[in-house]
Amino acid sequence: MERVAIIGASMTQFGQREGWIRELLAEAGIACLEDAGVDADELDHLYVSNMASGEFEGQTGVVNALVHDLDAMPAYTQRVDQTSSSGGAGIYAAWQSIASGASELTLLVGGEKMTHRTTGEATDVIASLTHPAEYKHGVTLPSFAGLTARHYLERFDAPRESLAKVAVKNHRNGVDNPNAQFRKEVDLETVLESPIVADPLRLYDFCPITDGSAALLFCPESVAREYADEYVVIAGIDGATDTHVVHERDDPTIMGGVVESGEGAYEMSGYGPSDVDVAELHDMFTILEFLQMEGLGFAEQGEAWELVEDGKTDRDGEFPINTSGGLKSKGHPLGASGVAQGVEIYEQLVGEAGPRQVDAEVGLCCNVGGFGNCVITTIMEAAR
Amino acid sequence: MERVAIIGASMTQFGQREGWIRELLAEAGIACLEDAGVDADELDHLYVSNMASGEFEGQTGVVNALVHDLDAMPAYTQRVDQTSSSGGAGIYAAWQSIASGASELTLLVGGEKMTHRTTGEATDVIASLTHPAEYKHGVTLPSFAGLTARHYLERFDAPRESLAKVAVKNHRNGVDNPNAQFRKEVDLETVLESPIVADPLRLYDFCPITDGSAALLFCPESVAREYADEYVVIAGIDGATDTHVVHERDDPTIMGGVVESGEGAYEMSGYGPSDVDVAELHDMFTILEFLQMEGLGFAEQGEAWELVEDGKTDRDGEFPINTSGGLKSKGHPLGASGVAQGVEIYEQLVGEAGPRQVDAEVGLCCNVGGFGNCVITTIMEAAR
Repeated sequence: MERVAIIGASMTQFGQREGWIRELLAEAGIACLEDAGVDADELDHLYVSNMASGEFEGQTGVVNALVHDLDAMPAYTQRVDQTSSSGGAGIYAAWQSIASGASELTLLVGGEKMTHRTTGEATDVIASLTHPAEYKHGVTLPSFAGLTARHYLERFDAPRESLAKVAVKNHRNGVDNPNAQFRKEVDLETVLESPIVADPLRLYDFCPITDGSAALLFCPESVAREYADEYVVIAGIDGATDTHVVHERDDPTIMGGVVESGEGAYEMSGYGPSDVDVAELHDMFTILEFLQMEGLGFAEQGEAWELVEDGKTDRDGEFPINTSGGLKSKGHPLGASGVAQGVEIYEQLVGEAGPRQVDAEVGLCCNVGGFGNCVITTIMEAAR
Repeated sequence: MERVAIIGASMTQFGQREGWIRELLAEAGIACLEDAGVDADELDHLYVSNMASGEFEGQTGVVNALVHDLDAMPAYTQRVDQTSSSGGAGIYAAWQSIASGASELTLLVGGEKMTHRTTGEATDVIASLTHPAEYKHGVTLPSFAGLTARHYLERFDAPRESLAKVAVKNHRNGVDNPNAQFRKEVDLETVLESPIVADPLRLYDFCPITDGSAALLFCPESVAREYADEYVVIAGIDGATDTHVVHERDDPTIMGGVVESGEGAYEMSGYGPSDVDVAELHDMFTILEFLQMEGLGFAEQGEAWELVEDGKTDRDGEFPINTSGGLKSKGHPLGASGVAQGVEIYEQLVGEAGPRQVDAEVGLCCNVGGFGNCVITTIMEAAR
């Protein structure tokens, strides 16, 4: 089977942005095409990862708007929605478009515009992905995170500080990401003394509400060198689901979708956890970084916190995680987040990560929808 | 490349339905699996074509809900949105999932729940797909249809009655479709004397607001015989876009997306217009049936109306169109419509269309998003 290459990447400034979703999508799309030196009229397919432009802005049909704004007609287009993992699902859709032979050149743009709504309105839209039977009892995504964090800390005798250190690390990394929403360090005390959101988790254990967009450009590996000297290949990719009703899961510390999608991606790539040099994990809540580290085999169950405590996941550690700053400091514009994870791994693998650069040949992204409801794991390698 | 087979099909009763979108999706999904004798836990991928469950019902994450309701975890899932052509885009996504090797068994379920909202609310959601620059001047999709119909009738010297005969024909076909929303014949006078909506088009030139769901099951052709004695193969499929701003198009009677997607599907299949025995076209407005007939090469520009006048597109004519009753009488639950087109062609090609059965080896579906903004054309053939 033809392998799929990524030959261009871009992301907009994340944060509080003016304008509408279609402007953010076009900004990242145009920058990505320029990055690869490709004209929009060369595109065969164009996918947009976006959860809720209709709910946030009353604008649907954003895929057609983007094709129009890029002047890419008659390129095929489709919106990919998998809630907060829409970006990862977009990578999978773009991969399928190339691997199936349907497209020779596919642009993926992920984006979301949220900050013009109040935090309450924005979180209400996000909460609409949960099961009504849980939501009506008030068990929102942050509540699940709080319950899971308490369970994890007690069961595995982990210190509360280890969770806070995820936030401290990711904020530190974000300082060197010019597109991050928050480019400021936070110290342990600030995290530990921030307002309680869902006990034991506090404000700094949560990612912010964010506007932003990110893009990747895909082609068959056989023609990648025509576009780029340095490029990245998708070595493995898989997606998986877990129950919609979260309380039906046997063990709240095991994210089934992470485990299953990780196994699929490892199998396809021929790599294992120890081959991965750098990873972008979905740290919407600090506890999720632990659960993904364990689900993907980077740590045994109940032991991820020790790696964080020991600094092994720092940028200069043995196994850097979230060198981009993660969702925590970079921000979490739903449909963009999974694509932006891919942008970071792409930049790390082609050596364009600037002050965030680590030594890496193989990178992994894990993008999580809901509370692990849908998960995509992608393994990329630098072209040799 | 491995060809993709369709081994099962189902649709729910279309019309005004009780319950929520997740129940409608599950109803069609379960029926489709039963049709093929497949258990849900065999599924690799599960796609949901749906435009606006968040806007209509305040429920997002319906893909995860459906995986849960079918007990299909850890099957991969994703929502496919291309507004009113989401169903056709779902067929393309399912095709890519199989052709790329990502999945060996993919279920596609398309559905929409709309009738619990007022007609005004429902049409507002649909209108949100149009370009704001046109929408704010009141040019909605029905307006475009009225303007285009007037232009077509005058330019090609076509009688108003020819448009009405599309409605008469499709209503006549719908009588024999047990799942159609309207199973009643309408005569020419009724159409021509119904209330004006967008002059010269009247109430019976438009499809209704509808709830419903439809499903198709896909696998590689190499294993199709293990599941089904009779099955269908996707011979050609392609999608294309036209401008988001409708008034920027050079000729309002030429739907660029129809032409481009049709050419792509013909080229892939090796078939031409004269090889097609039966077609499901997107008759959201009667005028669209003419424009698609011409865009797909079934008639020269400005001459489709003559085929309708002559009865050639009747069920017992040379080239039957919309044997299902079309969107016109069957109904148009946005995300379901393109899938239901596929269900009709599947049933025609495997000989399960009952009283609607025509003699056909090759069938075509054309699913249109917006006013031709996004179009998918699929050509299917009976397995030999």
